[in-house]
Amino acid sequence: MRVRFYNGRILAMDGDMEVRRGEVWVQGNRIVYVGENGVQEGGKAGSQAVLRGEMSWDREIDLDGNLIMPGFANAHTHSAMTFLRSYADDLPLQEWLEKQVFPMEAKLTGEDIYELSKLAILEYLTSGITSNFDMYFHPEMIARASIDCGFRTVMVSSLNNFNSSPEEMEQEYLRFRDYHELIGYQLGFHGEYTTSEELLKKVAALSEKYQAPVFAHNSETRREVEECIGRHGKTPTAYLDSLGMFQYGGGGYHCIHMTDEDIRIFRDRGLTAVTNPGSNTKLSSGIARISDMLDAGVRIAIGTDGPASNNCLDMFREMFLVTGLAKLKEENAAAVPAGEVLKMAVSGGARGMGLTDCGCLAEGKLADLIVVDLKQPNMQPINNVVKNLVYSGSKANVKLTMVNGRVLYEDGKFFVGTEPEEIYEKASRIMKRMME
Amino acid sequence: MRVRFYNGRILAMDGDMEVRRGEVWVQGNRIVYVGENGVQEGGKAGSQAVLRGEMSWDREIDLDGNLIMPGFANAHTHSAMTFLRSYADDLPLQEWLEKQVFPMEAKLTGEDIYELSKLAILEYLTSGITSNFDMYFHPEMIARASIDCGFRTVMVSSLNNFNSSPEEMEQEYLRFRDYHELIGYQLGFHGEYTTSEELLKKVAALSEKYQAPVFAHNSETRREVEECIGRHGKTPTAYLDSLGMFQYGGGGYHCIHMTDEDIRIFRDRGLTAVTNPGSNTKLSSGIARISDMLDAGVRIAIGTDGPASNNCLDMFREMFLVTGLAKLKEENAAAVPAGEVLKMAVSGGARGMGLTDCGCLAEGKLADLIVVDLKQPNMQPINNVVKNLVYSGSKANVKLTMVNGRVLYEDGKFFVGTEPEEIYEKASRIMKRMME
Repeated sequence: MRVRFYNGRILAMDGDMEVRRGEVWVQGNRIVYVGENGVQEGGKAGSQAVLRGEMSWDREIDLDGNLIMPGFANAHTHSAMTFLRSYADDLPLQEWLEKQVFPMEAKLTGEDIYELSKLAILEYLTSGITSNFDMYFHPEMIARASIDCGFRTVMVSSLNNFNSSPEEMEQEYLRFRDYHELIGYQLGFHGEYTTSEELLKKVAALSEKYQAPVFAHNSETRREVEECIGRHGKTPTAYLDSLGMFQYGGGGYHCIHMTDEDIRIFRDRGLTAVTNPGSNTKLSSGIARISDMLDAGVRIAIGTDGPASNNCLDMFREMFLVTGLAKLKEENAAAVPAGEVLKMAVSGGARGMGLTDCGCLAEGKLADLIVVDLKQPNMQPINNVVKNLVYSGSKANVKLTMVNGRVLYEDGKFFVGTEPEEIYEKASRIMKRMME
Repeated sequence: MRVRFYNGRILAMDGDMEVRRGEVWVQGNRIVYVGENGVQEGGKAGSQAVLRGEMSWDREIDLDGNLIMPGFANAHTHSAMTFLRSYADDLPLQEWLEKQVFPMEAKLTGEDIYELSKLAILEYLTSGITSNFDMYFHPEMIARASIDCGFRTVMVSSLNNFNSSPEEMEQEYLRFRDYHELIGYQLGFHGEYTTSEELLKKVAALSEKYQAPVFAHNSETRREVEECIGRHGKTPTAYLDSLGMFQYGGGGYHCIHMTDEDIRIFRDRGLTAVTNPGSNTKLSSGIARISDMLDAGVRIAIGTDGPASNNCLDMFREMFLVTGLAKLKEENAAAVPAGEVLKMAVSGGARGMGLTDCGCLAEGKLADLIVVDLKQPNMQPINNVVKNLVYSGSKANVKLTMVNGRVLYEDGKFFVGTEPEEIYEKASRIMKRMME
């Protein structure tokens, strides 16, 4: 497929946050040209191909002044938890996990996870999310759901005392890291508070063996941090680092109750702090130290967390919350400006997940991109596109979502190989069975 | 016009929060029937009219299982500030007002306010908002914009030391309170910190004369409260109450830095606390004491505030923030459950603004209602409709918005007498002129 987007505003995010007029060309699953409208003499490879008459289009899309930009990378989620949306709410994290989530999860089959992951993918597409970093059980089924939809997923192990094993994780790592162009896999574990030191040391050994980064929930609640200090005399970050866990990078999900030393470790090890403000708000877990991490030079990405704790999978809501909660916490309306937030949601996530070919619009990069409708009242007047996206943007502005060169969502319609009604019906049936 | 909505889920909010299956009939600007699918023997007036063969339909809408509910009442805004969206951000309130907002507002003409208010109305409609409580200059132009679009607006004076006068407010009050079925007017002033005691006493006298409620910004920033205590030895609420301002009710916008005594005064006077969490977050003004006010029995409504401080006009974002920020502030994930939030956004607002015939679906009430698309991934599975609305709902779920019996927005299209592109174009031209 050769697709030409023309007559648009381009936010390429390939070094600056400027919005330029121009066009973007896609060939197969790659971007082959980003530049001015019309073909420029002496342009890059893509435009030269057209000059030589080698480029013909399967589809030409007139953006009519709308915005084209890289898609969002959802850097932490548990997709298949869609079934628990609005089932158990208004509870604190530990109680919610132990009384509501774990008993229901015990009833899930692999086939359930396939269907429920697809439901989440539909919602990612409506929010302009083009990849997700998914921590859940049955990686085979997650991968199948993602591939069948044409969506990009990096999986991460949720190894803990009750689920999986270092041996299983190693097998999965070897199997899924070159499994399919849409699939990735990273080493990980659920969290310090659910994983024994014996297991953690084995994870660190695997990281050493494959020179691979490691990801886990980290410092999500005050209780988690206090109990870790009680057990090991160290915060989760310092304790895990002392086990040699982060020799090859990686990151933490949530990262709320971080000390200055934790922040230094994150910076020194090149770890990504994935912030999940929607979930942290709804579960009253706290507000992350985003400005302090930014000032220290820590890499930051944004995740929706799972749909049971958030409850929606909406990068626009997350972006507003990242800056809004920082402004409230610091009592400073200038905290965490819009451009920084947008970078976290796009390139911060892609980089954290290991998607080195995503996160910007540039020749040779993967065609994971979105078209944002600026012709809706919440985007008018167009005083500042970047601020509009972060402060007033919404799912309703997502006109088109392309993953790996394929349009999966456009003008409210899905092109994922299955009708959404069928996916809704299956999710309802699964929930009904659970309630029996 | 006679419109029949059938085959839907109904959240009538007429006493409980149950979702029932059934239909809603609209005749002219009123609801004439809410009940089970098909016409029931011994039903109410509307169904009896049909039984007698008196009811024929101009339009029948198959809801196909989607939700019909009363529209949201946006209980505090400054609509025409759309022109400043994403123009001045990341600044604290006082600096933002004095350096960015006031100089730009000084350049506004009445005609500008007409166009810019229309831009806001478009966005209200996309978010299922069917009425707004609008504090801005040039009420004549606000009323014209609202009537021309078919939208419902209650205006409130922004009287202060630099703008308007008690005499002008009295004229406006007399003129606009019976001006048009879509227009209301309430006595008000900008805030204690911008209005002299001499003026405030005249406002209180008008309230006494007309036995009318009074509304104003109240306790939005800590500085505002501290300075008021410095000037008068009392908080804004206690000080205004001591002037006899609230003998006939009314309310406050923002109401963040409230003391226990302030909360008692609000309860005892039957005042409505209008919370504006989006704006309070973005301007780092603070988090309101929602649970304490709820526990005390204070009436609460929700407003978006103006588009320059928020920057979007989205009741779904506000609803999530009302409960989410309360959960964070109180470190209690059970704080302010979804049903309470939804009541604030619907009936709390309508009651606060004096719209006694809005805020629920019931025979004889005004036909201000919305249809919510449940067939989108963020609403699936349908474990709990009320929680879905508050925790995962978005503008993208608003399928239809009806005000006063007329469909003004449906499936992304506006029916307000003007094409949106024309409104966008005019707003851009106004902003360009401002920047010259």
